[in-house]
Amino acid sequence: MVLHPDRFLPSDPAVRGIARRLLGEVESLPIVSPHGHTNPRWFADDAPFESAVATFLWPDHYLLRMLYSQGISLGRLGIADRDGGPVERDHRKIWRLFGEQYYLFRGAPSHQWLDHVFGEVFGIPGRLSAATADEFFDAIADSLKRAEFRPRALFKRFNIEILATTESALDPLVHHAKIAREWDGRVITTFRPDDVVDPEFSGFADNIDKLGVLTGEDVSEWKGYLAAIRARREVFRAHGAVATDHGHPTAATADISLADAEVLYAKVRRGAATPAEAELFRAQMLTELAQMSLDDGMVMQIHPGSFRNHNPALYAKYDRDRGADIPVRTEYTRALHPMLSRLGNEPGLTIILFTLDESNYARELAPLAGHYPCLRLGPPWWFHDSPEGIRRFREQTTETAGFYNCAGFNDDTRAFFSIPARHDLARRSDCAYLAELVATHRLEEDEAAELAVDLAYRLAKAAYRL
Amino acid sequence: MVLHPDRFLPSDPAVRGIARRLLGEVESLPIVSPHGHTNPRWFADDAPFESAVATFLWPDHYLLRMLYSQGISLGRLGIADRDGGPVERDHRKIWRLFGEQYYLFRGAPSHQWLDHVFGEVFGIPGRLSAATADEFFDAIADSLKRAEFRPRALFKRFNIEILATTESALDPLVHHAKIAREWDGRVITTFRPDDVVDPEFSGFADNIDKLGVLTGEDVSEWKGYLAAIRARREVFRAHGAVATDHGHPTAATADISLADAEVLYAKVRRGAATPAEAELFRAQMLTELAQMSLDDGMVMQIHPGSFRNHNPALYAKYDRDRGADIPVRTEYTRALHPMLSRLGNEPGLTIILFTLDESNYARELAPLAGHYPCLRLGPPWWFHDSPEGIRRFREQTTETAGFYNCAGFNDDTRAFFSIPARHDLARRSDCAYLAELVATHRLEEDEAAELAVDLAYRLAKAAYRL
Amino acid sequence: MVLHPDRFLPSDPAVRGIARRLLGEVESLPIVSPHGHTNPRWFADDAPFESAVATFLWPDHYLLRMLYSQGISLGRLGIADRDGGPVERDHRKIWRLFGEQYYLFRGAPSHQWLDHVFGEVFGIPGRLSAATADEFFDAIADSLKRAEFRPRALFKRFNIEILATTESALDPLVHHAKIAREWDGRVITTFRPDDVVDPEFSGFADNIDKLGVLTGEDVSEWKGYLAAIRARREVFRAHGAVATDHGHPTAATADISLADAEVLYAKVRRGAATPAEAELFRAQMLTELAQMSLDDGMVMQIHPGSFRNHNPALYAKYDRDRGADIPVRTEYTRALHPMLSRLGNEPGLTIILFTLDESNYARELAPLAGHYPCLRLGPPWWFHDSPEGIRRFREQTTETAGFYNCAGFNDDTRAFFSIPARHDLARRSDCAYLAELVATHRLEEDEAAELAVDLAYRLAKAAYRL
Repeated sequence: MVLHPDRFLPSDPAVRGIARRLLGEVESLPIVSPHGHTNPRWFADDAPFESAVATFLWPDHYLLRMLYSQGISLGRLGIADRDGGPVERDHRKIWRLFGEQYYLFRGAPSHQWLDHVFGEVFGIPGRLSAATADEFFDAIADSLKRAEFRPRALFKRFNIEILATTESALDPLVHHAKIAREWDGRVITTFRPDDVVDPEFSGFADNIDKLGVLTGEDVSEWKGYLAAIRARREVFRAHGAVATDHGHPTAATADISLADAEVLYAKVRRGAATPAEAELFRAQMLTELAQMSLDDGMVMQIHPGSFRNHNPALYAKYDRDRGADIPVRTEYTRALHPMLSRLGNEPGLTIILFTLDESNYARELAPLAGHYPCLRLGPPWWFHDSPEGIRRFREQTTETAGFYNCAGFNDDTRAFFSIPARHDLARRSDCAYLAELVATHRLEEDEAAELAVDLAYRLAKAAYRL
Repeated sequence: MVLHPDRFLPSDPAVRGIARRLLGEVESLPIVSPHGHTNPRWFADDAPFESAVATFLWPDHYLLRMLYSQGISLGRLGIADRDGGPVERDHRKIWRLFGEQYYLFRGAPSHQWLDHVFGEVFGIPGRLSAATADEFFDAIADSLKRAEFRPRALFKRFNIEILATTESALDPLVHHAKIAREWDGRVITTFRPDDVVDPEFSGFADNIDKLGVLTGEDVSEWKGYLAAIRARREVFRAHGAVATDHGHPTAATADISLADAEVLYAKVRRGAATPAEAELFRAQMLTELAQMSLDDGMVMQIHPGSFRNHNPALYAKYDRDRGADIPVRTEYTRALHPMLSRLGNEPGLTIILFTLDESNYARELAPLAGHYPCLRLGPPWWFHDSPEGIRRFREQTTETAGFYNCAGFNDDTRAFFSIPARHDLARRSDCAYLAELVATHRLEEDEAAELAVDLAYRLAKAAYRL
Repeated sequence: MVLHPDRFLPSDPAVRGIARRLLGEVESLPIVSPHGHTNPRWFADDAPFESAVATFLWPDHYLLRMLYSQGISLGRLGIADRDGGPVERDHRKIWRLFGEQYYLFRGAPSHQWLDHVFGEVFGIPGRLSAATADEFFDAIADSLKRAEFRPRALFKRFNIEILATTESALDPLVHHAKIAREWDGRVITTFRPDDVVDPEFSGFADNIDKLGVLTGEDVSEWKGYLAAIRARREVFRAHGAVATDHGHPTAATADISLADAEVLYAKVRRGAATPAEAELFRAQMLTELAQMSLDDGMVMQIHPGSFRNHNPALYAKYDRDRGADIPVRTEYTRALHPMLSRLGNEPGLTIILFTLDESNYARELAPLAGHYPCLRLGPPWWFHDSPEGIRRFREQTTETAGFYNCAGFNDDTRAFFSIPARHDLARRSDCAYLAELVATHRLEEDEAAELAVDLAYRLAKAAYRL
């Protein structure tokens, strides 16, 4: 298999012709990746990547969840559990199992991304399967030994202009510091304070203690706690951060009085909050964090609506991020009302909203972003970064929010090798959408060409103030 | 730019050919506009319209909200606030700003509608932009001075068979009376009693007082209050009204006992109702109003699901209808159950349901309208009157409700000049959908041709009993 | 009218060419029908079917609801009510009325299915209408007299490999026993215990009594009640059942303690449960039934989200299943959590989830089925078994769950004659979807061909362990 030059473009020949011309405007643009989860150590140390298994399979919860859903244990995939259960150690055997099961991903974006990685990044012809797994394994192993497959070389080859990672508020940011000292690739951090903002986050009390130690602020009370968070934001900004990120269960915000906030914090601090109080605390913190964003200029990203660690047995054995996060229905119109009532008209504030509940695109998100000057819509998130997901997003948001209230594309990935593939898929999907608007005479081609560049490049830079 | 003759039709040449033939059946049909918000004074006084800014920009909250969302203050657009903030008075400067920002509407239906107004109604070639804003401004100003651009002349030129406006229950209807005396254009009113039915409507207590004065009924108690509403309905019917309209926050209905209703009304009347009681009162009133519709034959329209005036700062400065109404999730199956249990099988009753929550199309609305004889589905409402919105409506309702449980098209606009554009877009979108059914052999072309006329013309007349 | 050989296939010629080739792989495959509601008596007795009216109209609530929604009383359609209201007895007159109203079904799958039945099964040319109703009526009557139109002959002609019916837990299964003794057609039962599991099911207390009598278990307490259900499952398995089916109002599950369950059962048993306790009991029972499925290997099907008998006047006059069941919004992520926490990782368990709330496809169902090894997604259910419904299902589930976490197609019908039509429509719709993936270079044609067979045949057999 070689990647088809017209992949993801409309099948109708006339529309495809338009889409090809639009794609010509954007396919060689640099990659702007303002939100993601790659490991900054890769770029700090520039060590070779390990095997195909360690590089592609283990960090990719899209792959793990699908294999697990079909009855393949994580142990057979080489992932050790806390109870010391059986684990396959032979990477080649694991890769063969993956090759044998690769057909499970037919029609899923994971298949498209990996095909791009294998074909474009590694230049391997053919399709991964039981029959070709060894060939792929060896070809990848050979390449990964070469200097041009080291992280920094790939970063340049991938034409990445800027790459944001995401770190906990407590992270020492040593990798970013080293990158800044040693290298000219622009890898910036993002401030993600869930572990010190969400009373139900595991280890919350300890995290607050650490926050106090790290900042020298008195976190025993509300005022000092907020000051500590402000202090960490400043450190993050010094390491290049332009944005914060908040992965709350809901989009709830609140705007309670200072006195009430002090009492609530005291209760949260001593671990005595009920679930409703924990929710109120997170809600109040979103408003406080928005206020801080207005003050220090960091762009705020809200990623609500995931029921984290839904599978308790798996969580107990393997910890977070093993593919058992499941979306829940999410509400925005009422949830954001307290925060927007206080800050929604501030010209200096930018808040980017994401969702895992697509029923909000047309109903709540496009109308909100199509009104409040501080709001922008984040791109289709997580389970929705497929050609269909991108088309649904455009079809359901453009009529009310237009294109210019969107924040451009995010790859949002920990799979570094797939970054070009994800941007390629998004650019092609957007060109397909624009070509259909041109072909049905809703947009002229010169406008579509300008929009293609906006969607692929300019809007992300504008939204994240890069 | 000249409007493309195949705008909004499918790009596939064979399907487009079918769609063109279907469009040929409907494009010159008269416009039936049974639900909208144009100003009856226009037709009563027949005065020339003002400038492009006053005519197109100011009354159109679609335009204002998008511009505001991109950081353009309403003052710069010429809209005065209550605090006496800065306001641009020069219409030409405002129009230039609009021309410069017109690209924001790319892909949104507002762009399509305005292009139609500029190109078809005013005959202006080219595209509105910073470069052409003056030219457009002048051309529009020249036209608006001419007799054929007066409201009554345009009404005839637009081939409007009937146009319904919407008035408060307390409206004196003087414009409709004048129109009826002086002119043969059929401009009818619609009875919208939210201000005397919703205890949370601003000025509710005063409104009830006015209702009592206007009707001579004793509105101090439930029975007199209902009689007063019945009396106003009669006045509206005498001014041509065939329908009522109800813009409640939810679709909740109730069917409580007479004794309970009397107690509830007394509480509401003295301003002592809790939010839950206010909701129950609105719910009970929907059932009472449905009973009145059964008695007097007025078609009932329910438009639920908007969180009105979401932006309190904007509301305080500029009052209602400035683009800060945001949809919320809406429920119908349980909400309508009390009313439908009492009246759902009445052959003499018609209730048209609208939604801002498209997740209801297939789940609740099509199954309800596909069963209850009194129910019809209103067309895609407000944020959903785009080609995509119309396609989603058809694709998600036709399988269960068919075409014949739908109420035809509503333009629902206060933008008089855009009425032909909106019907044009709807007719073309429906022809595109029908053509696809023909091309995939799910409908024969003679059936599609009959349906095209039904959707563009006959169903609206049937549903509204015109 | 003759059925078009390319019906439901994409209109673009190149994509249609691919779809035709894919269809060639599946159109003559046997029908696997693992979930449905045909009457086993038909196959047990092999008596001729009655008139067109009795055979096609009366058992089909899709048809009855649409006709009723347009003001046609059930009495005019020949259906007697409990009050002895007027009923049309002349089948020919009823059929004429149906022919006259057949246009109401334009664009609805019922029209496609019936066209297939008339054209393919009966070989009648032309289109049903007022003008042709007599001709259709007579042609059908003539055919139904012939031996090859008896149930068993049609079963063979339809190339049905296996057909599952659905019976109450209390059903004596005499028809299945007779079929097994007398005939080689594989007609199996399905265990549907709602009447002994749902405290709000009409006659629940009597049903439990019958359950005790039938099994000899002591159903006065929890332990005996569970044993009685297990006993009935065993009887069903002896009559070929491979699956159970559960039509609860919600997807709620629970996992309460044995002591709490005993107390709850006692309360439910004596009819003293509140609505919340009834819901908890159903929720606990889903978990108990899942445990039983793990133990005895029966595949569990959960069909939640219908508000049954929404129209009380109709229910009082005509009883269940007359088309007044209306979907409600449904939640899965939290609802299934208790059951999945206990049993979700069991390799021996299969649970097939269905929905009437399509907003769950991408949000909750695909992520759940794309993680938990016990879960599979049932096909588009009830109101969603149209070409559009099938396309929405594929487009919204494939990106996250893939194709292989789906359970293949179910016709879910009581309309025996329409079974080939429904499988035809589903196979064509799936081939259309696959062809589009091929045409946009997301799948290669050899993979699509394999998938076409999987979706049409293999996945159903695998999911139901046939």
